[in-house]
This record gives sequence, structure tokens and C-alpha cells, in this order.
Amino acid sequence: MNCEVIAVGTELLLGQIVDTNSSWIGEQLATAGIDSHHQVKVGDNFERMRTVLNHALERSDSVIMCGGLGPTQDDITRDVIAAAVGVELVRRHDLVDRISSVFGGRGRPMPENNLRQADVPEGAEVLPVMPGTAPGFKVEAGGKAVYAVPGVPWEMQQMVEQCVLPDLKQRAGITAVIKSRTLRTWGDSESGLAEKLHDEIGRLDETGECTIAFLASGMEGLKVRLTAKAPNEAAADEILAAEERIVRGVIGDDVVFGVDDQTMEFAVLDALRSRGWTLGLAESLTGGLIGARLTAVPGASDVFRGGLISYAGEVKFDLLDVPEGPVVSEEAVTAMARGAARLLEANCAIAVTGVAGPDPLDGEEPGTVWMATLVDGVVEANRVKFPFDRERTRQFTTVSVLNNLRIRVLAGR
Amino acid sequence: MNCEVIAVGTELLLGQIVDTNSSWIGEQLATAGIDSHHQVKVGDNFERMRTVLNHALERSDSVIMCGGLGPTQDDITRDVIAAAVGVELVRRHDLVDRISSVFGGRGRPMPENNLRQADVPEGAEVLPVMPGTAPGFKVEAGGKAVYAVPGVPWEMQQMVEQCVLPDLKQRAGITAVIKSRTLRTWGDSESGLAEKLHDEIGRLDETGECTIAFLASGMEGLKVRLTAKAPNEAAADEILAAEERIVRGVIGDDVVFGVDDQTMEFAVLDALRSRGWTLGLAESLTGGLIGARLTAVPGASDVFRGGLISYAGEVKFDLLDVPEGPVVSEEAVTAMARGAARLLEANCAIAVTGVAGPDPLDGEEPGTVWMATLVDGVVEANRVKFPFDRERTRQFTTVSVLNNLRIRVLAGR
Repeated sequence: MNCEVIAVGTELLLGQIVDTNSSWIGEQLATAGIDSHHQVKVGDNFERMRTVLNHALERSDSVIMCGGLGPTQDDITRDVIAAAVGVELVRRHDLVDRISSVFGGRGRPMPENNLRQADVPEGAEVLPVMPGTAPGFKVEAGGKAVYAVPGVPWEMQQMVEQCVLPDLKQRAGITAVIKSRTLRTWGDSESGLAEKLHDEIGRLDETGECTIAFLASGMEGLKVRLTAKAPNEAAADEILAAEERIVRGVIGDDVVFGVDDQTMEFAVLDALRSRGWTLGLAESLTGGLIGARLTAVPGASDVFRGGLISYAGEVKFDLLDVPEGPVVSEEAVTAMARGAARLLEANCAIAVTGVAGPDPLDGEEPGTVWMATLVDGVVEANRVKFPFDRERTRQFTTVSVLNNLRIRVLAGR
Repeated sequence: MNCEVIAVGTELLLGQIVDTNSSWIGEQLATAGIDSHHQVKVGDNFERMRTVLNHALERSDSVIMCGGLGPTQDDITRDVIAAAVGVELVRRHDLVDRISSVFGGRGRPMPENNLRQADVPEGAEVLPVMPGTAPGFKVEAGGKAVYAVPGVPWEMQQMVEQCVLPDLKQRAGITAVIKSRTLRTWGDSESGLAEKLHDEIGRLDETGECTIAFLASGMEGLKVRLTAKAPNEAAADEILAAEERIVRGVIGDDVVFGVDDQTMEFAVLDALRSRGWTLGLAESLTGGLIGARLTAVPGASDVFRGGLISYAGEVKFDLLDVPEGPVVSEEAVTAMARGAARLLEANCAIAVTGVAGPDPLDGEEPGTVWMATLVDGVVEANRVKFPFDRERTRQFTTVSVLNNLRIRVLAGR
């Protein structure tokens, strides 16, 4: 079984938007054991879309068409698929109701145009998952399936995960299970980890039951992905669990901050929660980024008290009792951590001050950062000089200081 | 003249690398006035690559093949192009010398494999620019040009800019200039804007001097892109300036928050700066996100004093003087805005409180948000119910409240 992906949108051809959708779909297909030999971008043009779809139906077993399901005149994926399989579009009244109710919920009137989204090719099966106002659907064409999903990534992803992939796997009769587990690490380099795992990778090459791959993912950490193929879920899980123990033993438990979707902020909140501790922040350089990431995690309020974004010098001096003087310094960051814990009545605190750039500050170069953690009344501060631009400096500071706190909380001091 | 782009590499289909190359090439082609109707990804497989290339030569006037020029056995773009045009590969001794000298310059011995990079299809014209060790080349196939460039972005970009585009423009006899300007809007829907601009788009369809396109970009706003084609830069600029005035007149100046790369946070800081006003925040729901976005802009410190992330109820009561009671309410958000202005000694303030979800809070459903702005001592608050998940609720809240403040600051009250 193979599946071709057609990404629709003139803006993709013009490079105004990078087509990340077909990459994401390609990754999901590969993980599910389905080949994808061709992925095509085509503009919002009826004839070209139809030709590309017909061509895909000749050479591939199934097709996912992504985009062109919106409400405007440009959005013609519905029309193209109907023409390719030789049926008419029909207006589905159940979809009219669903789309109207989405608009009702937002308190906005529904423009007449949006009714076009209730049109689907005759005989199409509407996908049961509809996160936005664009319904997805499936059409059968000579024993091959054509799936239409919206181009908005979060809408598309839910539909592909919950509807398209299970359907494709069933059609392909795929029973072998391929499962992955990703260990997310912080604090070691890719070549460092590869060197440590060299012998283990050699051993796996021989047994063939599992593979190890590295994926540098910026502030999401350096990912170590274990992939196992087995006759069933339970057997795959067993292989992955055993391999995870081996890898953690080799690279060290402290380096692994999370598994799969567990972010650094999740790990920090989890560690704090397990001790019944609370957290307050004093952010200067990062301007709220640390708080924003922590509060992206549902349930953060158990642990996270709040923070002070002390951007202006006076805010540091007046509210956090930072002594007058250079604000990118060990004294300042230490006072900020103590001030945050006191003001926000928290057991633990994080403080960050530094020079984001592009200009120097207090005689320090851009990229210079002081970060501190407070645990059990004790502040530990360290200075880092990042070689990055403004935004990467802020982001790497965020993850680094969260990791510092994670290690201290796990150690209990 | 149109040009098809073929991106070569199994890793692109597997989603391990996002194909940004063809997006970049597409943007350059569009700016040069050359259409690109199809862009294809294909894996490192001889038969599939050859079929895709033959198909491209049938439907397109020219082809850029990107990737597969490296030294390994997987790199077979040379072989595929030679086969497609029916010639043999020949080893070019001038290229052997150039490749050897690149290695010599790096002080490394050249692996034997790299000699494969000196093979090109018989009759090919080698591109004069070669930033790495992979030569690019052009082959003529029945009056159509096939360009081969490496997949390494910086190598590819230099070759395309300096060799491929000038050659394509010359072949197409292009002397016209194409320029775009993007108006970034907030507060109206895509279909709403399309309805308002319906007549103007109709008028432009007839004159043909400019086009209008919409681009929904989530929290970056709904973009309205104007594109003009003219004999020279100055004439294109003049058309764009005139069209911008017309469009602003139709959709309303308030709706347009920025032009081209100007973000909402840039617009807010700019408006505040022009009045000499300062800003403080009180963030609950957004947990620091508003501060993080504002401080991503270099020079934010002119205007931005700081913020209080009042996540826990007690922080709202104790530090911001929010009256005891429901914290997702008009009373609470109003007190938060006043507290932020007072505590941070700012002229203007933003406050946000709400239910991010997944669970209800104080009897309010997830997605319920109270947002407030304070300007000149006057607080204006409004309640919104977003139909989104946790993260999108937080992001749309951020942009919505920044936009509310922008409009008030521009109005001076």
C-alpha cells in the first residue's frame, strides 16, 4: 500500500507558506508502515488539480489531498474530486448545521460563503472529526481511496490521526506494529550521545529488533528515537521498554528529561508536584517566555504561583529588592530569585537576566545570561554566553534554566 | 514560461526534513515573473525519479531538480538526467581538479567517492558557481532546460540566484518587475474581507495591473497581499501604493495592523512609542505569553515596563488588589489592569483572565476570557468565548487584546 500526498495552494508554490503538511503526513505514513513515493504541490487551478489527481490515482494506491476546503472561490478541492470521480457536489444539511453552530459559538454571523463548505461529492463519506469549519471526507475511486483534509495544520492533523491513518492501515491489512518511543535529552551533544551509544547501535544492527535514531530539535531537546517492529502492540512495547532501560543506563538518567510528548516544562511541573512544591518566576531577558511555556501545560496551576516580568530596571529595584547596580550580574539574578519566592510565596524560584541584543547592556555582550534557581532557600546561579540571535538566546535560556531546576528538584535540594 | 521544481530525497518524503528548498525556489521564480505550476517530491529511486522528470518535461517549459548530487551511492540525479535525455555520463577533469582543490582548501583528504561528483551528462553545461563540492549543471532537452542543483540550501541558493534565474529570465525574454505588499489584518474574517473587496477584485481582474490574495495566518493575522507587475521597480511601487490606499479605504484603516513583516506586537510598541507612553501587564490565562511576544521585538524596553503573571488567585488578591470573588469576571480583570498600571508605574495596561481549559473554572466554560485595556486611567473590558483548544485560546487572546490596545492608543484614548 502506498499513499500519495497532494498539497493544494498557490501560496505553497509561491513559497509564501512552506508546505509542512505533507512532511508531517509523510512522517505519520512511514510510522504506520505505509509508503509515500510521491508528494506534489499544485496551485488552486481546476484543470491542473484534476490532472494531478488523475495522475496520482494512476500511480498510487491512495491519495490524501490537503487544502482547498475553505469558504472562498479559490477553494475548489471539493469540485475537483467530484469531477475526477464523475459525480456532482451535494449540499449536506447536517454539515450546514455543524458549520453554523461553530460560528454561533464564536458569536459571529456566518458569511453566506461558508455554506460552500457543506458541499461534498455525492457518495462521499464525511470524516467524523471536524475541529474547524471545514469538513474532511473520503471518496472511493475504482477501489482507491481519496481523502480530502483541510490545509490548516491543527485541523488536518486531527483528521489524519483519527480518521485517515486507521482507515489506510485497515485497507492495507497492516497487522505488524511499528512503534516508536522518543527519549528527549538536554545537556549532551548529538556526537556525544552517538559516541556513547556506538556499541549499542552496533548490537541492534545485528539483532534488527529495534533501531536508534537521533533528531536534533532545538529547544525541544535532542531526541533519541527508538523504533521497534513486532507482531503486536504488547511485543513492541516490551522491546521498547527493554531498550529504553539500556539507553538510559548508557547516557545517564539525568540527561533524559522526558519521553515522547513530555516537554521540559511538563517535566519541571511534574517534579515539583511530586514534592508538593510551588514555583515563582522573575523574568527579565525572557520577558514572560518561561511563564508562557509552563502555563501551556494543563494543570500548571497546582504548582505555578506566577511571576514577575521585571523588564525595566526600576521594577527589579522596587519590587524585587535588587540592589542598585548592573542588572546583568550574579547579585541581581540572586536577588531576583529571592524576591520572586518572597513576593509570590513559592518554595522554588527561577530568575533570569541577560542581554538579548542586538545592543550590549551594562558593558555585557548580547547573548550573556545570568540564570538562577532557588530551592529550599538556597540560590544557585550561573552565567552562560550563548552564540545565538535574540530569539534563540531567549529560548535556550528558558529551557536551560528549567532543566537546572528540574535536576535540583529531582535531587531534593 | 513556467518551471517545475523536483525535490529529490527519501528523507523529504519521510518528513525527516521539511522541503524548504522548493518553497524558496518558488518564491524566487514568482518574483522573477516565472510561473511554477508543479512542485514534486520524490525519493532516491532511479525509476521513479526518471518517470517524474519525464512527466515534468511533458507538462513544463523547464525543470529545476534539487538534491541527489552528493557523493554517495544514493545520489543519482546525474544518472537520472543522463538517462532521461539519452546520453552517457562523462567524467570532467576540470571538475575533478575543482573538487580536489575544495578538499585541499579544507585540509582534508578527498574520499574516492567524491569523484562521482565530477560526472555530468554528456553535453551538459556546468554552472560557473560552485560553493561546495557538488557542481550544478544545465542540460538541454528538446528545447527545454533541465537544471540540476544540490540540496544543501546555501549551495543551491547561490546557484539559483546567480545562474539559474538569470538564464530562465533570458530564455523567457522577461524584462517586467513583479512586486508584492502584504497588509496584515485582525478583526475580520477571510470571507468578510473577500465580500468587502469583491468589487475591487473584479475591477482589478479587468485592468490586470494588480492582484489581491488572502492568506489566513492564524495569530499572525489574515494577510491581504497586493501584487503588481510593471516595467520597472518605481512603476510597481506606485501601483502598490495606490492599491494600498484603495484597499485601506474599503476594509477600514483600523483593521490593518501592519505591513509586510510588521507583527501585532511591533504595531503596539510603535503606537505607544509615538505617544511616549509605557505599558504594564497583568496576565493570568496567558501566563506570560503577551510579555514574551512584546519582548521578542528589539527595543521593547523603551515602552515595556514589565508585567505580573498572576496565575494563583492569591497573587491577584494580594499584589493586584483584585477583590475576593470569581477571578474570571469584569471586576477581576478591571482590578488587574489598574493594579498593573499602579505596580509597574505605566500609563497603559493590559489584563487578561480566563479559562484555558480543559476544565471549567468558577462555573465558566473553557475558552471564556475577560480582557481589559487601560489607557489614560480608563479601563475598557470585554468578554470573549473562544471555540479553541487551550493553546489557541491563549494565543488568540494575546493578539486580540494587543489589537484592542493598539486601536485605543492610535485613537489617543
